[in-house]
Order: sequence, then C-alpha cells, then structure tokens
Amino acid sequence: MRHSCDIAVKADSHPLIESVAVELPVPSLNDNTALLDRLTRSLDRLGFSPARMAGSRMEELVLKIDRLGLSFRAVLGWADTHWEILDIIPASLEGGVFAFAVDLGTTTVIIRLVDVAGRKTLRETSVNNPQVKWGEDILSRIIFARKPENLSTLRTCLIQACAQAMRKMLEESGVEASGIYALSCAGNTAMSHFFWGLDPSSICREPYSPAANTFPTVYASELGFDLFPASLLYLFPNVGSYVGGDILSGIVAAGLCKTMQTSMLIDVGTNAEVVVGNKEWLVACAGAAGPALEGGVVERGMQAAPGAIDRVRIDRNTLEPDVRVIGELKAQGICGSGLIELVAEMFSSKILTIQGKFNTELACPRFRDTPEGRAYALALSSQTADGKELLISEIDIGVFLKSKAAMYAILSIICRKVGLGFDELQNIYIAGSFGNHIDSEMAVRIGMIPDLPLDKYHGIGNSSLAGAAMLLCDRTILAEVEKVRSMITYVELNVNIELMSEFRGALFIPHTDPRLFPSVRRP
Amino acid sequence: MRHSCDIAVKADSHPLIESVAVELPVPSLNDNTALLDRLTRSLDRLGFSPARMAGSRMEELVLKIDRLGLSFRAVLGWADTHWEILDIIPASLEGGVFAFAVDLGTTTVIIRLVDVAGRKTLRETSVNNPQVKWGEDILSRIIFARKPENLSTLRTCLIQACAQAMRKMLEESGVEASGIYALSCAGNTAMSHFFWGLDPSSICREPYSPAANTFPTVYASELGFDLFPASLLYLFPNVGSYVGGDILSGIVAAGLCKTMQTSMLIDVGTNAEVVVGNKEWLVACAGAAGPALEGGVVERGMQAAPGAIDRVRIDRNTLEPDVRVIGELKAQGICGSGLIELVAEMFSSKILTIQGKFNTELACPRFRDTPEGRAYALALSSQTADGKELLISEIDIGVFLKSKAAMYAILSIICRKVGLGFDELQNIYIAGSFGNHIDSEMAVRIGMIPDLPLDKYHGIGNSSLAGAAMLLCDRTILAEVEKVRSMITYVELNVNIELMSEFRGALFIPHTDPRLFPSVRRP
Repeated sequence: MRHSCDIAVKADSHPLIESVAVELPVPSLNDNTALLDRLTRSLDRLGFSPARMAGSRMEELVLKIDRLGLSFRAVLGWADTHWEILDIIPASLEGGVFAFAVDLGTTTVIIRLVDVAGRKTLRETSVNNPQVKWGEDILSRIIFARKPENLSTLRTCLIQACAQAMRKMLEESGVEASGIYALSCAGNTAMSHFFWGLDPSSICREPYSPAANTFPTVYASELGFDLFPASLLYLFPNVGSYVGGDILSGIVAAGLCKTMQTSMLIDVGTNAEVVVGNKEWLVACAGAAGPALEGGVVERGMQAAPGAIDRVRIDRNTLEPDVRVIGELKAQGICGSGLIELVAEMFSSKILTIQGKFNTELACPRFRDTPEGRAYALALSSQTADGKELLISEIDIGVFLKSKAAMYAILSIICRKVGLGFDELQNIYIAGSFGNHIDSEMAVRIGMIPDLPLDKYHGIGNSSLAGAAMLLCDRTILAEVEKVRSMITYVELNVNIELMSEFRGALFIPHTDPRLFPSVRRP
Repeated sequence: MRHSCDIAVKADSHPLIESVAVELPVPSLNDNTALLDRLTRSLDRLGFSPARMAGSRMEELVLKIDRLGLSFRAVLGWADTHWEILDIIPASLEGGVFAFAVDLGTTTVIIRLVDVAGRKTLRETSVNNPQVKWGEDILSRIIFARKPENLSTLRTCLIQACAQAMRKMLEESGVEASGIYALSCAGNTAMSHFFWGLDPSSICREPYSPAANTFPTVYASELGFDLFPASLLYLFPNVGSYVGGDILSGIVAAGLCKTMQTSMLIDVGTNAEVVVGNKEWLVACAGAAGPALEGGVVERGMQAAPGAIDRVRIDRNTLEPDVRVIGELKAQGICGSGLIELVAEMFSSKILTIQGKFNTELACPRFRDTPEGRAYALALSSQTADGKELLISEIDIGVFLKSKAAMYAILSIICRKVGLGFDELQNIYIAGSFGNHIDSEMAVRIGMIPDLPLDKYHGIGNSSLAGAAMLLCDRTILAEVEKVRSMITYVELNVNIELMSEFRGALFIPHTDPRLFPSVRRP
C-alpha cells in the first residue's frame, strides 16, 4: 500500500452532537414561561428545532440549570425527527463532548473514543467478540439464537463486553462517563440483529429478508448501556441480509458515493464484501472468501495479532525464509497478509508450482515429510512459542488458494456485471485489518487482486469504524448513508454459476490466463 | 343544575390511538426489504407517517408478526412528532384498544378506563391521593418536596396508587394490561410536577415560572407504569403556575374554545379556578375559594363521600332540618353542597341574619350553647355515626361565608377585567365533584354565584377527567389544547386590591347590594 485514504471530515462540519451556548431570558411577571419551555424556545431560535427532551431527563436538566444559572451550554443530538436535549454543561466548557464509535465485528469489536468537538480520536481498543464462545462463524450463532434465551445471551454478552472496554478507556483517558453523548455503531446485518436483540434467522433463509434494516435512534441506556445516561445510540442501517451497516459505513468512509470516479471497496473481514460504483450508482456483493485471508482456516492460521507472522521473504538461492512476527515475539501462527507473502514468495522461488503444489524436484532444506504429506517449515522450533516447527502443508496452501481464487472471482464477476474492465477502476480501497497489512504487489503476484498500477490500491484500515466515527463529527453523513442505502444494488453471488468457472481459473498462481497478469513474471 | 353538558366526542372522530389493518407485502428475492421496514412503509401508505418504533419494542413486534403472519392490525399512537408503533394484534380484533384517563387531583385521583375504539367509559374509580400524608394542601407538599428524596417519595407513591387502582379496574373489567395503549393525564401545575418528578417550588415564588409547562409524550413505563409496556403517556400541558393542565382539559371538555358565545367555567376543587371567554379569547384566574366549598375548613366538613350530608331543607315553621346523607348512612359530616343548602335554608328560615349571624331573637329548638358560642344542631345524636350531635357553629358559618364571598368576588373581578356584565355570559359551567352536587338556585340564594336564569348553569362534573378522556378518542384535541394554551391569559388576583372591596360586600347574604340579586327574596 502506498498511502492511506484520508477519512477525516471537513474542519467546518457540523457534528451529530452539538454543544451550544444558551442564554435563557430571565423570567418576569410579564413572561413567566416555564424554565424548560424557555429552553426549547431559545434552542428553537438558535436553529435547533424541534427540540425535545426525554421524560426521564427533565428532572436532571432542571437541576443543572438551577445550579448553573441562566447562562450555560446545552448538548443536543439529532434523533431522527428532532433535536434531543441531552445535557446542560457549564458555559465555559467549550469541548467536553465525547462519544464512542464502534465496529461490531463478528470476531472482533473495535471501539474508538472520540473528542467530537475536537474531531480527534483519543483512544482505540479492540475486544474479542464474546459471542465467539457460542459459534466462531455467524451462521452457528444464528442457529444458536433461535432460542429466545440464547438470543438474549448473545446480546447481553456483547453489550457487556463493549461497556467494559468503554469503561476502561474512560478510566485511562480521564473522560467522565457522563460526558459521553453518543455511541455510533456499525456491524453486519446479523451482528446488528444480535446487538438489538432481534432474531436474525430470516437472514439466511430465502428470500433473505431481515427483521429490520433500519434502527431508531434511542438512548444508549435503552439497549443496556446504563453507564451513559445522556448518550444516544445510532446503529448504521443495513441494506439487506448480505450488505450490512458496516459496509454502508465503509462506503461513506471511502467516499465512493462522493465522486464520479468509479472505484471499488473490498472489505475482507470474516466474509469478503465488495462494492463498486460512484456517486451515481453502487453495486455490492459478498462472498465467502474471508476466513483463509484472515488466517482463520489454515491449520496454523491466526489473526493479525502479536505472535502472528505477517511478513515473509524467501531467499531465492537458499530457499530459507526470513519472517517478521508482530510484537517481535516467538511465532505462534501466520496471519492473512503473512500467508499472501508466503505463497507469493514460495511461487517466486519456485517452491510452489503454478498449480499450488510443492515442487518435488527442488531440494529445499525446509521441506518436511509428515503423515499428512509434505510440508514447508516456515519457522524452526527455536523460533516458535510452542517450541515446535511451524509447518505449512500442501493442504493449507490449497485452502488458502481457494480463498484467493474466490476473491479474484468475486472481483471479476462484479466488474463484469456492471460492464467494467478492471482498468476502468480509478481506486481500489482495501478495508479491514487485512487491508492494513497486505502488500498489494504480493497480492497481485499470486493473482488475488487485479494486475493494476499499485498506486490505485489504498489500504484504509477499518472503514466501518472510520465511517461510524465520521458520523459523530459530521451529521450530513446521515443523509449520505440514506442516499447510499437507497441507491445500492445487491448482486447475489451464491446463486451465480459464473462464479465457479471464474473460480477454477483463479485457483492457479496467478491464473490460468497469464494475459490477466502481465506484470507477474513467471519464475 | 338542570342538565349536563355533553362532553362526548363526535362519532367520526379520529382517536389518539388507532388500530389499523395492515397487509404486509410478501417478501421475495426481488423485494426482500426487512420485515419492520415493510411495516413502516405500509403504514406510511396508510397515512401514518412518519411511523417509528421504540428500540425496546422491536423484538416483540417482530415476534408478534412472526406469529400472526402478514395480515394483522397495528396499534399506533401519535407521539408529538411521529406515529409510534405500539403493538401488533390479530386482524380479527377490531376493538381491543383501551386506555386510562386520569385526573390528578390534589386530594383525589379519578381514573377512568376507556374503550377507545368504542368511545365508551368502562369503569371509573377514585383513589385518595396518597401524598395527603405529607401535606393536605399543595403548599405543604411543595415545601416538603424541596428535598430530592421527598420529591421522589411524592412521585412514587402517586404512581403506585394509580397503578394499583388501574390493576384492580383491569381485573374487574377483564381487560388485559397489555391492551392498555395510553394514559391521558391532567393535573394542576404542582401535581404535574410531582407526577413527573420535577421540583415545583418555583411555582409559588415570584415570578411564578414553573420548571415545565409542556411534557413530552413518553412510554408510560418511563414514568414507572411498568404494567403497561405498550402504553404511551400524555400529560396535559400547563399554562402557568396557577392554571394547570386540569383547567386546560376542562376548557376543552366544556367546549369554551369552540363557540363565539362567551361562557364561564368555574372549577371548584381544592382551589377555585375560573375561566371566561370564547373561541377568540380566554381569561383565567384562580383564588383560594375552594377549601370551605369542598367542605374542608368547616369543623365537621368533609368531601362529598358516603356519610356526608349533601342536602338540607329546613321547615320554615318548626325550624327543624331534613337532611340527606350520601349512601343513606348515619351522618359523619357535611360536604360543600350541603353547606350551601344549609346556609341558604337557614337564611330563608331567618335562623341566619343577612350578616351571617344566628338570629338570637328566634326560639329555635336546634340552637345549642357551647363553650365556643352558639351552634345549630344539624343532626341529632341518634342520626350521626359517632352518636354525638353534628353542630354547626357561627364560626363555621363565618368561615364558609368567606369562601362564598371569595368565589363571588373572583367571578365579579374577572368579568370586570374583561368588561363583561354577568348577564352577557351565555353559559356557566360548574365543574368538579362540587359542580355535580350543588343546587344552583341555593347557590344564587346565598350570593355565591350571580343571579342569572338558572338554565344558564350547567354542572359538568369532573371536566379535567372528561377532557383527558376526550383526548383519547379525538386527537384533534391536541391541537385544541395548544390553541387554548397559546390564547389564554392569566389574571393574577393575589395582588389585586379590587378583590378586597368586592369580597367585603359579598360576605353578606346574599350581598350588601340587593340589586345584584333581584330574584332573592328577603325573608
């Protein structure tokens, strides 16, 4: 990746949560309008109309005005149809508006603490999604959740894990829980359902109509975040069963919908989701290309976390590997970007054939014979955490190649569907933790992504989280999300027979058709 | 009173809570819009726009649709800015929409169970306001409530007393708590504050600006009515410290604001509130004329409840009284309407002088001498619950005459303020339990109300409760309430020196100026 796309909002953007200076008129016998009515009237004049407050917040708002006097700042959040008056803070406090952005990932939940007024990230943390205990893949969880008490378990553990992590972030940063005014969350359709306590089972049943695609803005306490009594909760809407709020958020973060340049967004999480389009049209599809790319399927595969091998170089002469381990620890496994580099380097050094088989004619000092067949020792026993050699088998390579082939096939099909050649794409944004780590030259070399000038590729990190954070600082994103939601078309790949033929050619390294990868030299 | 004003709504009125037949489109691969989004879209087409649902209700709505299929009825309530989707009920259930109307009285809370679709009262009950324990008069309670924990006590005991009475009404009527979709409540400004948990202390402090005059529509559970998870709660807005939601509700119930005929509404509760006007203008005032009229101040005074003497006739020759006791029990005390009749009859039979003193020249068999002075034995020991004679002293009469004088003075002043003679009033509506019982001829005879043709007087019972019930069955009343609230002018009597001179003349029976009561014959 050459450089990251700037996902920050404009400096003069209007945040979703505003803190506004209010000077209440002094009541008199001639105008003894009630205190809170004077407040809504003043806010109305300041352009925050209609302004309302929750019944349960009124008492506290009155007490705060009593304490602060008639000059103060009101904190307001836009809530679908009106401005919700969230809090009263001292007139001198010009900042003091904080919020959380949350990416509700199937495997990992990423939480960012945002200084809304300052448009700054204060802290970011990742939490293992505790639902994994009841199913690593989303489908097992959906089946588990068919019992209402299990659905409730999935919801509660998720909320609690988020709340616990948020509490810790607040402690570390010195921000008060009472200063949190919004939680902006995005997740895939199933995660959104779990989060809201809705049964997601219809997502995986024809005609794939979810229980809900849009979610009202509510107080965070309504969903169990009792820690933040003055906080609203926004959950990004879903487009449908296979295109969730995380993708919508990512599209907005990448800015796909803002320019006439046609671009592509590839989000590799537990699943692979791909969007192509521009400000006039958007097409999305999703496919099961993810697990191996995230390191999930290969026997020694793992996420891009400390202990994971994420870079591999192989000496063309000695065929000895040189690996980098995240956190400079002893190796525990290999992550998705590590696998891409391993396969690319094995191919370039002729250890792997174009079919993805070990080259048995080669005298490679790292080859090992195991009961399950030949393997390549990527790390020696002295280099690993468990003191055993880290072996990559031909089966592992095969599994990985299926994932990379699925990815390339998906990209090919979606472009063909919209009648575009790869070379007509102006930008290709690669999102997800995967996108942060991969070397696009390596990914091209193995035929996972199209053979295009490398400067078209942009790793944009967690775009779902970035979009959720942007919404906090720029409320025009609400309209943008609605626009994207109404214009996006979902292409069903599961029922697409084209996929299989595309897939077969892409199982080779880089492809059966060398014309598709002119830049890749045959070793 | 000759006849009661009809407070029912039009037969074709649109209720605040609607149950509407919905036929959801069957989802398909071509249109697999999410279930709840299909619901809001269908409701939008039916004219319920924008329709929203609470985050916490979504799960249940989905479960109910799953159970009932795509053909059902949706129950919706208007909530300030949108239609709130409250429930999903079977398509066959055309009624099934119930609600409570509540008059939050200082002394007594009256609750009515309403069949909204049928526009029928199913049951009505009255509950002693448990706050009386911490102060009979509202001022003591306001002082008590200055400590937040006391305010919370007042709020909680009120909610609990209402909920308990409602539960009992449901049991008796066989209506399910889940079929309650609205609580429509009205009370004076202090009671509204207590109900909402707001400190009402600024109500009785210059410039008499309350904490809140308007209250958002909330879920009843937000205020502690956990019994009704699908119910909205509406609290009538206040005009100001001295004109509360109960008066607004009464004005609407009496229909003052709907005609060009100028009329008067007199609501005698713990306080006396008077409104004069028509569809173009409305003036309100309030004064401390109530307690004695409700029977509160006289030593043996009591509310119009079983055991209270509410009718009195005195034989002009024997000077012996003939009394009626509510519930045909032995007498425990005398209520407001009983006092009016007692004083009127004592005056007509010359037991009382025009100054309100006992006529000592008269040989009355019921006169008694007590250490506190002369008294009249209204009931003999054989007729009373405690076996002692029920005595009315000259002091009692004096206290009562102060109340009736205050009432007449208030009526005079408000009419003078708006430049009207009493004879220009087309209708005089007397509300409150008091209004249900008094005989207007008797009230005229003692000079409490103006000497007008008796057919101008209408006892309309509890108009606050009636207005609250009407709102449930006719949502145009929301707009009417807002109209009345914006056009009503409050006249402050507490600081009015005219009151005293008016008051002095009215202390006599019927008045020092006999020209004001031409129909009253001097005995």
